Amino acid sequence: MSANRRFLLIRRPNGEPVPEDFRLVEEEVPDPPAGGFVVRNHFCSLDPAQRGWMDDAPSYVPPIELGDPVRATTVGVIHASDNPDFPPGQWVLGMNALEDYSQAVPGGFAMLIDVSGVASPSRFLSAMGAVGLTAYFGLLEVAKAQQGETLLVSGAAGAVGSAVGQIGKIVGCRTVGIAGGPAKCRRLTEDYGYDVAIDYKGKSVGELAAEIAAAAPGGADIVFENVGGDVMDAELLNLAHGARIVLCGLISEYNSPEKIGIRNLWQVLAKEATVHGYLVSRFMDRFAEGGAQMAEWMADGRLRVDEDVQEGLENAYAAFMRLFSGANTGKLILKIA
Amino acid sequence: MSANRRFLLIRRPNGEPVPEDFRLVEEEVPDPPAGGFVVRNHFCSLDPAQRGWMDDAPSYVPPIELGDPVRATTVGVIHASDNPDFPPGQWVLGMNALEDYSQAVPGGFAMLIDVSGVASPSRFLSAMGAVGLTAYFGLLEVAKAQQGETLLVSGAAGAVGSAVGQIGKIVGCRTVGIAGGPAKCRRLTEDYGYDVAIDYKGKSVGELAAEIAAAAPGGADIVFENVGGDVMDAELLNLAHGARIVLCGLISEYNSPEKIGIRNLWQVLAKEATVHGYLVSRFMDRFAEGGAQMAEWMADGRLRVDEDVQEGLENAYAAFMRLFSGANTGKLILKIA
Repeated sequence: MSANRRFLLIRRPNGEPVPEDFRLVEEEVPDPPAGGFVVRNHFCSLDPAQRGWMDDAPSYVPPIELGDPVRATTVGVIHASDNPDFPPGQWVLGMNALEDYSQAVPGGFAMLIDVSGVASPSRFLSAMGAVGLTAYFGLLEVAKAQQGETLLVSGAAGAVGSAVGQIGKIVGCRTVGIAGGPAKCRRLTEDYGYDVAIDYKGKSVGELAAEIAAAAPGGADIVFENVGGDVMDAELLNLAHGARIVLCGLISEYNSPEKIGIRNLWQVLAKEATVHGYLVSRFMDRFAEGGAQMAEWMADGRLRVDEDVQEGLENAYAAFMRLFSGANTGKLILKIA
Repeated sequence: MSANRRFLLIRRPNGEPVPEDFRLVEEEVPDPPAGGFVVRNHFCSLDPAQRGWMDDAPSYVPPIELGDPVRATTVGVIHASDNPDFPPGQWVLGMNALEDYSQAVPGGFAMLIDVSGVASPSRFLSAMGAVGLTAYFGLLEVAKAQQGETLLVSGAAGAVGSAVGQIGKIVGCRTVGIAGGPAKCRRLTEDYGYDVAIDYKGKSVGELAAEIAAAAPGGADIVFENVGGDVMDAELLNLAHGARIVLCGLISEYNSPEKIGIRNLWQVLAKEATVHGYLVSRFMDRFAEGGAQMAEWMADGRLRVDEDVQEGLENAYAAFMRLFSGANTGKLILKIA
């Protein structure tokens, strides 16, 4: 292939992204930058966080520039290089973009990966990548989960939430998962070992809070938050004293023009809880350690990681929107080669 | 005096308390309970937290029962006793109620106090009591304030906030205080040493956020939160990376039938901030240490503590409402003997 297809952001979405916010173009395959290399991307991670990067708002990374391809974590093969540490033919992980070929430089997430022992290189975007490690470090290092504690997880059938629940069981927690719809709730208990599954759909905050209370009468020692909004407000009414809340994601409001936040903040005060805003990049220097542990648990059959692999850069928009419709079953990945 | 006047809660307030929610009655002076004592209350603390105790909602202490006097921290003199450790004539601090005489038992906050070295026994309800210690432990132990950090305080002219700002200066922080109206803002800089005073009145969240940004261009390393609502939403747009938020009070919503919460929770995630729900009772076993340090700073002239002393149990309602009108200037105390 001699062309580089690139999925560009050409307009900032107003609420939910529409196809007109993006454009697929073909350009020349670029040369390696000085001291860097060019990656042929094979698998691209599709994550809720990308929606935030499309807004022109202060965040932990700069917004995607209009006219640039949509930033994404990818795994691929080095196509050409100006750096002897990153030779052509090697598999590499990094923060690149939704495009066939990305210019890259060492630093940040960029690292060579050994794909010989894994079922698919895409695992480095799921269990052994930022998503699995978000679950791993968030539960073990931020929340410091202990045996016998009650762990409440929202977005529990999602890529992060499903791993959080399973690691929680490995630690010895009682796990209560919240997800949308009976199919996802069935997966919580059947596939991911949750002790209790709660369907939030069609319920008021009060009704959902009552269901959580029935499932966790002593309150939640740990809340692993991926959703926000009404779901989080119901959780906040069920905190144990001194609860730790890992604030990992707020997918319910990523497409909302107005931020939603929470109303029951006073419960954080009344229960002397702690809310930890959390980005996995904090643990970047320990990714190898976490990835090795995740790989071991997968090999032992103690950890199941599902991937929802969609195909084709031309399907990038439709694939991305699966995150917000709740259609994805497992870590959403776009295979482009 | 042979009668015991008691200020009873007879109806749960719907939003802002009204006089009809309370009744002042006269009863017999009680006898000491077994192993306990009776306090003649002299000074009663009036605090925003009391408003929360009037609601029938799950909180860190049970609600005040209808027909019971309004729970309050008091200092007074032991009137009669069935406990040799609490002999008549001694000054005592404790969680009692808005009434002339309270039955009390050892435990909790109840402790003998030495009033000989202080200007007024009421200091044990302000600088050397829960309010001053809330500032002391919240800033030094929860936020772990360090020299050179930027400290942003809401309710900065209030009893807690004014002490937080001054302790922040003692530690070596740059202090930015938010209060309502020019008179309070003048006190922030003239009386409490704040580097910058910001008046929140009449400003949108965006306008207030812009003023905070101008005062703290690098963002706030510490937010000491006493207010909540729009003020907190503006603060959240000005967090430094890794900011610590001490969630101490939410006075903006205590009289609101609907909880208000925050909309900019996503900033806690984006900035990897931590929100610490905080009740000073956590440090109860260190109150003597904290009180001694506060007393030393007051004696050295490094710490100014203002008290707004209202008089007469018959004025309890009007005095209490000063907390919510913003009329109080310093720690609000009701002198009843």
